[in-house]
Amino acid sequence: MNVVDFLLPVSESVARKGPHARIVLSSRVRLARNLQGHPFPGRAKKNERVASMSDIRPRVEELTAFKGCFSQSMDQLKAQEKNLLMERHLISREHAAKSSGSAVVFRQDESLCVMINEEDHLRMQSLRPGLQVKECWKEIDKIDTQLEKKLDYAFSPKFGYLTACPTNLGTAIRVSAMLHLPGLQLADLIGQTVNSVTKLNLAVRGLYGEGSDALGHIYQVSNQMTLGEKEPEIVERLTKVVLQLIENEENAREKLLEDQPKIIFNQIGRAYGILSNAHIIHSKEAMNLLSFVRLGVEMGIIPEVDCSVVDELFIMTQPNHLQHQAAGKLSAEERDLLRADMLREKLKNIPPPEPQ
Amino acid sequence: MNVVDFLLPVSESVARKGPHARIVLSSRVRLARNLQGHPFPGRAKKNERVASMSDIRPRVEELTAFKGCFSQSMDQLKAQEKNLLMERHLISREHAAKSSGSAVVFRQDESLCVMINEEDHLRMQSLRPGLQVKECWKEIDKIDTQLEKKLDYAFSPKFGYLTACPTNLGTAIRVSAMLHLPGLQLADLIGQTVNSVTKLNLAVRGLYGEGSDALGHIYQVSNQMTLGEKEPEIVERLTKVVLQLIENEENAREKLLEDQPKIIFNQIGRAYGILSNAHIIHSKEAMNLLSFVRLGVEMGIIPEVDCSVVDELFIMTQPNHLQHQAAGKLSAEERDLLRADMLREKLKNIPPPEPQ
Repeated sequence: MNVVDFLLPVSESVARKGPHARIVLSSRVRLARNLQGHPFPGRAKKNERVASMSDIRPRVEELTAFKGCFSQSMDQLKAQEKNLLMERHLISREHAAKSSGSAVVFRQDESLCVMINEEDHLRMQSLRPGLQVKECWKEIDKIDTQLEKKLDYAFSPKFGYLTACPTNLGTAIRVSAMLHLPGLQLADLIGQTVNSVTKLNLAVRGLYGEGSDALGHIYQVSNQMTLGEKEPEIVERLTKVVLQLIENEENAREKLLEDQPKIIFNQIGRAYGILSNAHIIHSKEAMNLLSFVRLGVEMGIIPEVDCSVVDELFIMTQPNHLQHQAAGKLSAEERDLLRADMLREKLKNIPPPEPQ
Repeated sequence: MNVVDFLLPVSESVARKGPHARIVLSSRVRLARNLQGHPFPGRAKKNERVASMSDIRPRVEELTAFKGCFSQSMDQLKAQEKNLLMERHLISREHAAKSSGSAVVFRQDESLCVMINEEDHLRMQSLRPGLQVKECWKEIDKIDTQLEKKLDYAFSPKFGYLTACPTNLGTAIRVSAMLHLPGLQLADLIGQTVNSVTKLNLAVRGLYGEGSDALGHIYQVSNQMTLGEKEPEIVERLTKVVLQLIENEENAREKLLEDQPKIIFNQIGRAYGILSNAHIIHSKEAMNLLSFVRLGVEMGIIPEVDCSVVDELFIMTQPNHLQHQAAGKLSAEERDLLRADMLREKLKNIPPPEPQ
């Protein structure tokens, strides 16, 4: 089955809202696990990767939570399908580059996803809209407990779960939340915010994880350390920091509106004006402008629109989602035209900003 | 009388159209003259300047063509009024800086204007919309002939009319046309165009004359030499070059529309989108964007609008015209807000671009 036919329409998936949806786009908890007696994927030969994959994949598929799931070996997916999954944040950029001996298994509602033979034998994640890291943790912990009964995890009493990269050793957990912080950006407070969060031993990254830009003023906050701290503590700590960031962002927006409303109106207005009138637009520019339109919607400056309309465009205007819309293979230039056409068309349903 | 109360509303003056108005905004012929026995203004003492001004000013005022004219000593004008006249291209930037001992005399329809004691004792110009340099020349030649009977011009049989700057010696004529060349700019042909025109011994300058930027893709083409060529020949030669430039610009627009229509639609759309939604905008950005809106109107991409609507905004959004609208003195930042407000309001009367 084609990935796209399986996935829910983007409009449905963005319509699901979680707590603090104004600022927190999504929460995610990811666990890394490896099997005893199998070399790590990066060191394994192809037949060894196929062997570990064959051990793991049926065990995941048979879990109740994965009933009716999509399960595919990476060599059976087209490049465009893999990139599409990456744009939905179901798999990593690294996993999108994998072929035979690696696989992906996920639920249709995108709430649970397992990458097999990415950097580790198992990378399982729970994804939820809004700030729900605790719920994500509970859910993925349950899956992990079920799998642990069936699979022989590589575990050291001293180091905890063993992982391909030592930075994941121990709990091998990554707890993260995706935040939309245009207010802090406009108020020129984003640098100091990133610094403070980093000092709390949390990492701040761009939209597509490590090494990527903060396109659309979207930041991923996650734990750095996996040793010496229990999972619930990490979840608790990250939640607290995210709640603080939400407050900072709300304060920045409020203060800007009070002190320099024209700066906000100007950014939102210009973004709206360009998106609804451009005929050529690159994905990065589109994201950065959509970010201001989302801010306008959240601040009530663009009235009577639900921010899911904008969130849908964030996803739909990405290169591989666009590509999927078109019949033939598109060049980057052709995508820039198609993206602009889509945005002009969709922006017709979003009324212009109305300051005051 | 206040300059602004005397001047016709901008909407009226932009409504007057001349030949080739699509591309040629205006034509101008300027003559420089000096009086025998009076030092040039730059070398004259204040009382000497007042003396020459007193000789010249009544002679200009009494001409039939100047009946009901505005005539004022520069020290009687506020800085804002002087700058407003500069923005209307009635006086030079240099003349706007003059005070006692200098004066300006002009007709209400702005077609004739005399600067007294700018760089020369007399700088008289005829201004007309569209390509009408020949008509301008005829008109200013008539004025010159009438004044020559009353004033003792400094004239050398060998060098012709004597002027403060040797580059004006001889005919002391400057024939110029103001051209809107966004097509050549978009097609990346403006550099080579400027080069070819320069090789023909014509100068190409920006909107406000020597040393100024080509804001809004507006270029002033004028003769360089005033020696060894008779006035009608200069007028004829410049007209031919301007006609060629018009053809080049039309060709560039046509070719762009044929080969890269999206590039045109994109520029026009974005310009329209920003102008109709910005809340802060600098005069330079406004001019450059208005230029693309004017192109859209001229190419029929923005339907059912007369380009005078855009031409009015070109003038009205300039700093001193804006300042005049406001009650108190505005800072540059305040002008950027007021300009954006005016543009948003006026753009409501201009329908969005409709490519194809």
